[in-house]
Amino acid sequence: MRPNLHWKPDRASSAGLARQVVEHLKGKIARGEWTAGTKIPPQRALAEALGVNRSTIVAALDELTSLGLLEGNRGGGTRVVNTTWGLLTASAPPKWNEYVASGLYESNLHIVQRINQPPPGLIRLGSGELAPSLLPQEQTRRLFERLAERPVPLGYEEPLGNLHLREKLSEWLRVRGVEASPSSILIVSGAIQALQLISLSLLRKGDAVLTETPSYLNSLQVFQSAGMRLRGLPIVNGGLQAEAVAASQRQLKAALLYTNPTFHNPTGATLDARGREALLRVCERERLPVVEDDVYRELWLDAPPPPPIKSMDRQGTVLYLGSLSKTLSPGLRIGWVVGPEPVVGRLADVKMQTDYGASSLSQWAAAEWIGGGLYDKHVATVRGELRGRREEMLSLLREHLSGLASWTVPEGGFYIWLTLAPDVAVDAGRLFDDALRRGVLLNPGFLYDRGDARSLRLSYAYASTEELDRGVRTLRDLLRGR
Amino acid sequence: MRPNLHWKPDRASSAGLARQVVEHLKGKIARGEWTAGTKIPPQRALAEALGVNRSTIVAALDELTSLGLLEGNRGGGTRVVNTTWGLLTASAPPKWNEYVASGLYESNLHIVQRINQPPPGLIRLGSGELAPSLLPQEQTRRLFERLAERPVPLGYEEPLGNLHLREKLSEWLRVRGVEASPSSILIVSGAIQALQLISLSLLRKGDAVLTETPSYLNSLQVFQSAGMRLRGLPIVNGGLQAEAVAASQRQLKAALLYTNPTFHNPTGATLDARGREALLRVCERERLPVVEDDVYRELWLDAPPPPPIKSMDRQGTVLYLGSLSKTLSPGLRIGWVVGPEPVVGRLADVKMQTDYGASSLSQWAAAEWIGGGLYDKHVATVRGELRGRREEMLSLLREHLSGLASWTVPEGGFYIWLTLAPDVAVDAGRLFDDALRRGVLLNPGFLYDRGDARSLRLSYAYASTEELDRGVRTLRDLLRGR
Repeated sequence: MRPNLHWKPDRASSAGLARQVVEHLKGKIARGEWTAGTKIPPQRALAEALGVNRSTIVAALDELTSLGLLEGNRGGGTRVVNTTWGLLTASAPPKWNEYVASGLYESNLHIVQRINQPPPGLIRLGSGELAPSLLPQEQTRRLFERLAERPVPLGYEEPLGNLHLREKLSEWLRVRGVEASPSSILIVSGAIQALQLISLSLLRKGDAVLTETPSYLNSLQVFQSAGMRLRGLPIVNGGLQAEAVAASQRQLKAALLYTNPTFHNPTGATLDARGREALLRVCERERLPVVEDDVYRELWLDAPPPPPIKSMDRQGTVLYLGSLSKTLSPGLRIGWVVGPEPVVGRLADVKMQTDYGASSLSQWAAAEWIGGGLYDKHVATVRGELRGRREEMLSLLREHLSGLASWTVPEGGFYIWLTLAPDVAVDAGRLFDDALRRGVLLNPGFLYDRGDARSLRLSYAYASTEELDRGVRTLRDLLRGR
Repeated sequence: MRPNLHWKPDRASSAGLARQVVEHLKGKIARGEWTAGTKIPPQRALAEALGVNRSTIVAALDELTSLGLLEGNRGGGTRVVNTTWGLLTASAPPKWNEYVASGLYESNLHIVQRINQPPPGLIRLGSGELAPSLLPQEQTRRLFERLAERPVPLGYEEPLGNLHLREKLSEWLRVRGVEASPSSILIVSGAIQALQLISLSLLRKGDAVLTETPSYLNSLQVFQSAGMRLRGLPIVNGGLQAEAVAASQRQLKAALLYTNPTFHNPTGATLDARGREALLRVCERERLPVVEDDVYRELWLDAPPPPPIKSMDRQGTVLYLGSLSKTLSPGLRIGWVVGPEPVVGRLADVKMQTDYGASSLSQWAAAEWIGGGLYDKHVATVRGELRGRREEMLSLLREHLSGLASWTVPEGGFYIWLTLAPDVAVDAGRLFDDALRRGVLLNPGFLYDRGDARSLRLSYAYASTEELDRGVRTLRDLLRGR
């Protein structure tokens, strides 16, 4: 368990630091926050979190051990073996360890958990989000000034989501070539929730899902947890090849094809219009539903990308996903699914069972952004910033990593896919650990392709220019074995 | 399918109404919003939604049928049988009907779907939410004025949720007898999401869950969809009886006990302090984890309720659920779970897979409400309002339903549990249909206890005083067979 402690001992107190730590940890055990069986954080992590010397922690843990509350094991870990109350009564709490290991949903990979909750101060060289400085603080403030003059949405929304937002989205999507009535749009809490709803609502255990290799899907547990099998096809000429899909589908009989054809996560690749058309026609012929994940579309850097596959959809084959998380604010948790009405209706019904709808506040804010044209203006600014960051990153790579790795050059989005040169001795797993020790958080390629130990997903969206520079230099040193 | 149409024909247009309706529906079919196999809404519902005469709908549907796009069946329903494109090419879309019938998650009961999306204008006599007039519009406006002066949270939050909110909650919970570090609190998108996370993260298919009969849980699919079996025990003296739980547990070996001991949904019952203590001790002895759903606690009307079961928890047996949905704003979608750190950590990890955290905007607003004491002031106002509404409702029941039904008298919360007198001929299902025809939406008791066809859940929280009066009179007429 990672420490999640915010308490600090009082240095002005007459009680010694070790005493205070003992009482604090005893309190956690007495309150059942650390139940019997809980593995406590390593000494070093505890010392850091509480801001005390490791010797203070050792003294405190020794005392708790002598009280019979903790026990060390040979591996060096320490567990809570008894609760304060249990000591008095010889009773035991529920077997939480067994519960925690149960459940349909797998845990996230340990490395994904670390990436989800990076300690402050790390250089995040692969994060799939905009830097805080690119989030529209000032405009949001003005938005809220306007909110203060109007009725605030506080009640439950319709199952499909706030109608005003869906109307605004319908207009906004039309400009992108996607014709969708408000009644065929479902508002979700980010595109990731759309994937969860699809897996819980439309698929059966054992169903195969076709996708790109590498794929963002592989870094999630969402389909795997619900018992689906992911099958990957290589990215050729910017995306999935229609013939490969047709050939694969004859054997596989997949239930769904998931694709991210525009500024692909993690490679940055984009499928051209002809490739999109061919892919859709094959899926139509095979009657294979398509989930088109299009959350990076607005972030084109050179020229607008080809129209969405959804814009060519003549029979309701495509479920189309969009989101504000990559362009405006991840914290809003607002995305959407466009698809046949019975399908989005089914997803909405399961969403009601899941969380009873997305935040009405977030939906209101999203409608204000999208409806008034503010959003398009903001994204134009972000594009300018990202353009500069991409150039910076590519120039750093050329300067420092030539000969050590090769990489893709994206036309939009956040990502560069970097592959180590054959003669570089380290693999991506080692690199992750070593980089972390030097303060750099990497996204290793095996998160997106389990069989690939030689790649990294880089992002120019999150870290500052200065951090990008330090991060790439660190990477260079590690690849050179320094 | 219920119509979810917002388009209306243009009465000023020179194109006839039927022509416009034909083109509109053809558009929906051409865009794949209504795919082949889609059952279209009944004529009456379509006419109402589009604001035209039924004869216009009949004419339009006839034309679409003659085009080969629609087909009526003997049951009177009409389906889309072909897409515009399919007619040209003899191709067919994915078999969405089969997909929609797949998935781990069951659909909500049809009646629950109707309750989730009530048509405007109905008197909602059982809705489990505050009337819009009780939501704090004005205070929220002022809150946003303050937000406009400060940095706005737009980024992703920690997996457990915004730290500032968890700190404020920790202080707020202490006053209620619940000692919880911020690290043992998980922010969720409403208490319903906590139940979903528990079912996906901690339980196994086939596990039994003990609860009250009737129980709010029975109106949800959340445990059932994940393959758990619900087992109910009667409510005696305000709640679950310790001895009954012990006896049942010897045979059942349930994995979890779910209880709502304070102003119970749907009966309004409250378990006294002694009963709580006894119940917890039995669960401790049986090592049976308890989920204590305490979302109505603040809404006491006569005197504060006994302290939470969680306040007596000495070993981390209890997962404690709270929420702002019943007291402040359902639309915020903010609730919390308090429990052992490894358990809330596991729930947080699955939440990251589900929706990547709750809206940061909503979390920010929740922290402002709870931290500054504003929330407690608001809830005091709501209590005053609900007190008046409860008296009003009870006096209406006495005046109109004496002899026709009996009912509970709640000490807090929203609900009155009404049971029909033995000589009343209608059952709750008939009553639901008949009341709906007269503009009154009821929550039949069988939603909460599948075996109970003679009860209703009434709520004095949602409908206006005038609506309560009309609603109860309508109920009286129906019970008298008028």
